[in-house]
Amino acid sequence: MYVVGLILAINFLNSHYQAIHTVTHKFRIHFATMKIALAQLNFLIGDFENNTLKIKNYIRKANDAQADLVVFSELCIPGYPSGDFLEFDHFIQRCQASVQSLAAECQGITAIIGCPVANPNPRGKLLFNAAIVLHDSKIHSVVHKTLLPNYDVFDEHRYFEPNTVFHTIDLPYGRLAITICEDLWSVGDHALYTLVPMGELIKQQPDIIINIAASPFHYRQSGRRREVFSRNAAKYSLPLISVNQVGGQAELLFDGESMVFDSAGRLVGELDRFHEDFKIFDTTQLREVQSKEQPSDAALIHDALVMGIRDYFSKMGFNKSILGLSGGIDSALVLALAAQALGAENVMSLLLPSEFSTQHSMDDALDMLSRLGTPHEVIEIKEPYQSFLSELTPYFSHLPFDITEENLQARIRAVTLMAFANKFGCILLNTSNKSEASVGYGTLYGDMCGGLSVLGDVYKTQVYDLANYINRNKEIIPQNIIRKPPSAELRPNQKDTDSLPEYEILDKILFEYIENSRGPDQIISMGFDYHVVLKVLRMVNINEWKRYQTPPILRVSSKAFGPGRRMPLVTKYLCQ
Amino acid sequence: MYVVGLILAINFLNSHYQAIHTVTHKFRIHFATMKIALAQLNFLIGDFENNTLKIKNYIRKANDAQADLVVFSELCIPGYPSGDFLEFDHFIQRCQASVQSLAAECQGITAIIGCPVANPNPRGKLLFNAAIVLHDSKIHSVVHKTLLPNYDVFDEHRYFEPNTVFHTIDLPYGRLAITICEDLWSVGDHALYTLVPMGELIKQQPDIIINIAASPFHYRQSGRRREVFSRNAAKYSLPLISVNQVGGQAELLFDGESMVFDSAGRLVGELDRFHEDFKIFDTTQLREVQSKEQPSDAALIHDALVMGIRDYFSKMGFNKSILGLSGGIDSALVLALAAQALGAENVMSLLLPSEFSTQHSMDDALDMLSRLGTPHEVIEIKEPYQSFLSELTPYFSHLPFDITEENLQARIRAVTLMAFANKFGCILLNTSNKSEASVGYGTLYGDMCGGLSVLGDVYKTQVYDLANYINRNKEIIPQNIIRKPPSAELRPNQKDTDSLPEYEILDKILFEYIENSRGPDQIISMGFDYHVVLKVLRMVNINEWKRYQTPPILRVSSKAFGPGRRMPLVTKYLCQ
Repeated sequence: MYVVGLILAINFLNSHYQAIHTVTHKFRIHFATMKIALAQLNFLIGDFENNTLKIKNYIRKANDAQADLVVFSELCIPGYPSGDFLEFDHFIQRCQASVQSLAAECQGITAIIGCPVANPNPRGKLLFNAAIVLHDSKIHSVVHKTLLPNYDVFDEHRYFEPNTVFHTIDLPYGRLAITICEDLWSVGDHALYTLVPMGELIKQQPDIIINIAASPFHYRQSGRRREVFSRNAAKYSLPLISVNQVGGQAELLFDGESMVFDSAGRLVGELDRFHEDFKIFDTTQLREVQSKEQPSDAALIHDALVMGIRDYFSKMGFNKSILGLSGGIDSALVLALAAQALGAENVMSLLLPSEFSTQHSMDDALDMLSRLGTPHEVIEIKEPYQSFLSELTPYFSHLPFDITEENLQARIRAVTLMAFANKFGCILLNTSNKSEASVGYGTLYGDMCGGLSVLGDVYKTQVYDLANYINRNKEIIPQNIIRKPPSAELRPNQKDTDSLPEYEILDKILFEYIENSRGPDQIISMGFDYHVVLKVLRMVNINEWKRYQTPPILRVSSKAFGPGRRMPLVTKYLCQ
Repeated sequence: MYVVGLILAINFLNSHYQAIHTVTHKFRIHFATMKIALAQLNFLIGDFENNTLKIKNYIRKANDAQADLVVFSELCIPGYPSGDFLEFDHFIQRCQASVQSLAAECQGITAIIGCPVANPNPRGKLLFNAAIVLHDSKIHSVVHKTLLPNYDVFDEHRYFEPNTVFHTIDLPYGRLAITICEDLWSVGDHALYTLVPMGELIKQQPDIIINIAASPFHYRQSGRRREVFSRNAAKYSLPLISVNQVGGQAELLFDGESMVFDSAGRLVGELDRFHEDFKIFDTTQLREVQSKEQPSDAALIHDALVMGIRDYFSKMGFNKSILGLSGGIDSALVLALAAQALGAENVMSLLLPSEFSTQHSMDDALDMLSRLGTPHEVIEIKEPYQSFLSELTPYFSHLPFDITEENLQARIRAVTLMAFANKFGCILLNTSNKSEASVGYGTLYGDMCGGLSVLGDVYKTQVYDLANYINRNKEIIPQNIIRKPPSAELRPNQKDTDSLPEYEILDKILFEYIENSRGPDQIISMGFDYHVVLKVLRMVNINEWKRYQTPPILRVSSKAFGPGRRMPLVTKYLCQ
C-alpha cells in the first residue's frame, strides 16, 4: 500500500525526469555566462505554506533582477531535517504540491530547489534526496543525491536511496553539474565513500558546479567547508556556487555562509553568516574577494547560540524565557545570550537562594541584572526545603546528609522555575555546561531541567571565553562572576574541584574522548594521568542515563550530546 | 591516524581472511551430516571479559557434547547494540583480543561468532559487521554482512560498509552459507534492498544456511521471523539454523527464539523465548516439531517487559526499585511486573495522596499491596504543596488555579520519589503508558520521571489486556482498579476523558499514525472523525519536546518512542 501510494502520488516527477534524460546535452554552450541568485533562507520544518511562499517570493525577486537562475538549499521545501516525517505519504504529497505551485512561478527564470522525490524502482528505499530544476513553468529535471551522510547527526540512509546515475543539466545559458551537499565531500583524506560524483559529472563537461546544502554549523566547520569547495573548484577548473540553509532547527544550527568560487578555487563571494541573505553573481564578473576575517571560536559560538535561542523560541511560537540565576558564570552567560536573542524584557531570572547560597553570589547576580535591566524575582527555597525534610524525616532521620539533600535543593528550584514557566507561558532555559553534562555533575529533574540547553555543548573553559567575548566592549557579566571558583553551593564551602579535576585538565580529556573518539590508551599517551583519565572516562560512561533525559542541546561542536552521539545506556565498557 | 591504527590493529583478521579465500571449495562434501549447537545467550555491552568467558564456556560445552559446530549470535563479542563505541579504536581492539582468545578454544570444534572487523579498503566505512569462523585454533574465515538495516532502531550504515563479495565456507563436515540477520530478509514484499545475498551464495551449492542475528522483539515480530526463515529454507531447499541474541539492552528487548528449519521449510527445533538456551541438532535427524502454541500479544508483552526490567536492573548493577502507586491501573500494572522481575521485596511503593486523591484510590492501592506483600509507605504531599503555594502566592495570587497547580502536585511526588531513590539506591520506575506519552498527557519532571519507563510502549487498551493476563490465575490487580474510569486526580472529579477521546478510539488513531505511519487523510478515510483525528495528530506532534526528555522506554511494538522514532522537535506539520 505504502509503496504504491507513494509512487503514484509523485509519479509526475518521474515522468518529467525520465523525459528530460533523453534531451540532455541538446543545448550545449561553452563558456557560459549566467546571472545566478543565491537564496540562503531559514525554513520551518513541515511549514509547507510559509516555506513555499518564501521560496516563491525569492523566485520573483531573482526574476525581477533578471537572474537566469536562483538556487535554494537542500530539502528546502519541507525544511531540513524532517526526520521520520519523510516516512509519511501525506508529508511527501505536501512536498509535491509545493513543487507544483513553485514550477508555475518559473517563467523566464530557472529555480533549483531541494525536495524528497519517489524512487521509481520497486526495490530500495522509497525516496531520493533531490535537487529539482524548475524551468519554463515545469519540472525540467531532477538530480538525486549520491553520497548520503550517515554519521554524527546524519541519518540519510534511513530515508534515501543513493544515486548511481550521473547526468549534468543543460539550460539555455549553460550546463550545470548539480551536486547535493555531501556529494562534494568525497575529496582528499575524507575517504568515507567509494564514489566521487564530480569525477563522473566532469566527463560531461559542465560549465559550473552547483551545490545545494543543509550543512550544519560547528565552530570548526566553516574552514573545512571553504577548503572542500575551493579544492573542488580548482580540481575541476570550474566556478562553484554553494547555497546552504540558515537558521536553528532545535539543536541543529545552520550558519548559511553560502559561497561562490572561481574556476581557480578562489573565493569570489560569500553570503552572511547566521542570517538570511540573498545575492546575485554574474559568472563573467567573478573577482576574488578578500574573505571577511575569520571570527574567533568564541565569536562563532556566540552568534550560533544567539541564533539557536532565537529560532527555537520563534519557531515554537514562544517569546518569553525564564532561568535560575545562581551568581555563577553559567547562568550569567545564558542570561546574557538570551537577552540578546529574545530581548531583555523577555528573560525572567529567578534567584532561588538556599541556606548554602553565599551572599557574594546573590550580590553578583543582582549586579548583573542591574546591568542588563532584565526582570527578576528573589524567592527563598527554605520553606519548601524544610517541608520536604520534615516529610522525609520519619524515613531518613537515621541517615546522614548526602547527595539526596543536595539534589532536593536543586529539584525544589526546578519545581519553582517550572511553576513560573507554566503559569506565565515561558520556556525554561537550562544552564548546564558540557563539562558538567559529560561527567554527570548535575541533578536530574533539578538543574538539568529546561526546554533548551544553551551551553550543553560548551565546555567550562569555553564558557569563560564566551563570557570574555560578551564583555569585549563593556562589562556585561561582572568580573566577580568570571573570577570566582565554580561551586554548586549545595553544601557548605562546596567547590566543583572537590569532586572533579581542574577544568583545564578535565576539558582536554573530555575533548579527546568525546570530539576525537580517542580511547584511554591514546589519551594517557598524550601525557594525562592514568587514574584521572580512567576516572573521567568512567564518569562519562556511567552517566549516559542522566544525559538521556536532558533537554535538546544547541550543537556548536563537531560532537554534541544528543542525536549525534549514540551510546549504549547500559554498558560495562570503561566503567570499572 | 584513526584509519591506519585500526587497520594495523586487526590486520591479523584480514590476512587470515584473504588466505582462506584461496582454499575455499577444497573440502567439498555433499549431503553433509553435522552436529550443530545453538548458543542463545545474553550479553552485556562492552563487558569483554564476561562476554568472552561466557562464549568460551559454551564452546567447551558444545565440544564436550561432540558437536561439530557451535553458533553464537550477531556481534556477540561486544554485545549488540554497541552504538558509537564502535567508533573507538580501543573498543575494536578489545573485540580483537577476545577473538584471539576464543580461537585458541576451538580445537576439534568450529565456532561462529559475531564481531566487528576492519574494512581493509582505504575508502568506505571503517568496519564490517562480521561472522568469524574459528576452527583448528585459528580464524578460519570471515563473512561480512551485506544488508545493513537502517530504519526504526537500526543504524548499521552508521558504522559498517556493506559486503559485496559472496563466498560460502567449507569445513570438513560441510559447506556453510553464513548470513547475518537482515541478509535473509530480502524476500517477498520486503523490498528495501536491491541485493539478495542467498541468491548469490546458493550458486556455490552450500549444504546449510546459518543465520546469526541480533533481532529485537516486538509483539508481531515472532511470526514474521518464522515466515522469513521458513521461506528461505524452502526456496533454497536447505536446512536453516538461526541463532538470535536474548536479553534486554536498555530499551531494546531480544527474545531469542533461535530456530531450526529443514530443507522443506518446516520448523524442526526452537529455543526458549526470553531466556538463555542451548541446544544441539543433528542435521541427519531433523524431524518436524509441533511449534509451541503462539502466545497471545499480552503474554508476549508481559514476558518481554519482565525480562526488560530484570535485565535493566541487573546490568545497571541495581536490584531495588521504587514507584508511586496511585490506585490507578498503570502503576498497579508496573508494580505487578516489577515484583515479578525483581522480587516483591525489591519494589517499594510510595502512596502520595493529595487533597484531590480519592479514598477509593487509596483503598485499592492498599488492597493490591496486601496481595503482593511488597513494602510501601504513605506520605501526604499536602505540606510541601502548601509551602510551594505560599512561596508562589505573591506572584500567582491574581491568577486562577490551572495546569500549573496540577503539575506542581505531580512534581512534588517526583521530588519525594527521587529523594527515596537517591537515599536508598533505588531506580524509580516510570508508570506512564503509550497513550499518555503520545498526546502529552503527563507532567514533565513529574509523573514522567523515572530511570526506566515500563509501559511507555503499551497503549492504555493494552494495559487492560496485560492486567487481565496477570490476573489469569488469581486476582493480583484488584478488579476495582481495572474497572474504574481512569483519572489523574489532580483536580476534583477529573477524568482522562475530560481532555482526551475514549481510549478505544484514541489508541486506534494513535496506532495508525505511529505504528503504521498513516497520515490524516488515510486515517479519516478509515472512518474516524475528522476533528478528532486532527486533534490527536496535533497533540502527538506538539508534544515531541516532552517525549524528548522521558526515560528509556521498553520497546514491545514495531514503533516505540525513543531511538526508533526520530521526529523534529520544532515543526508546523499537522500542528494547526
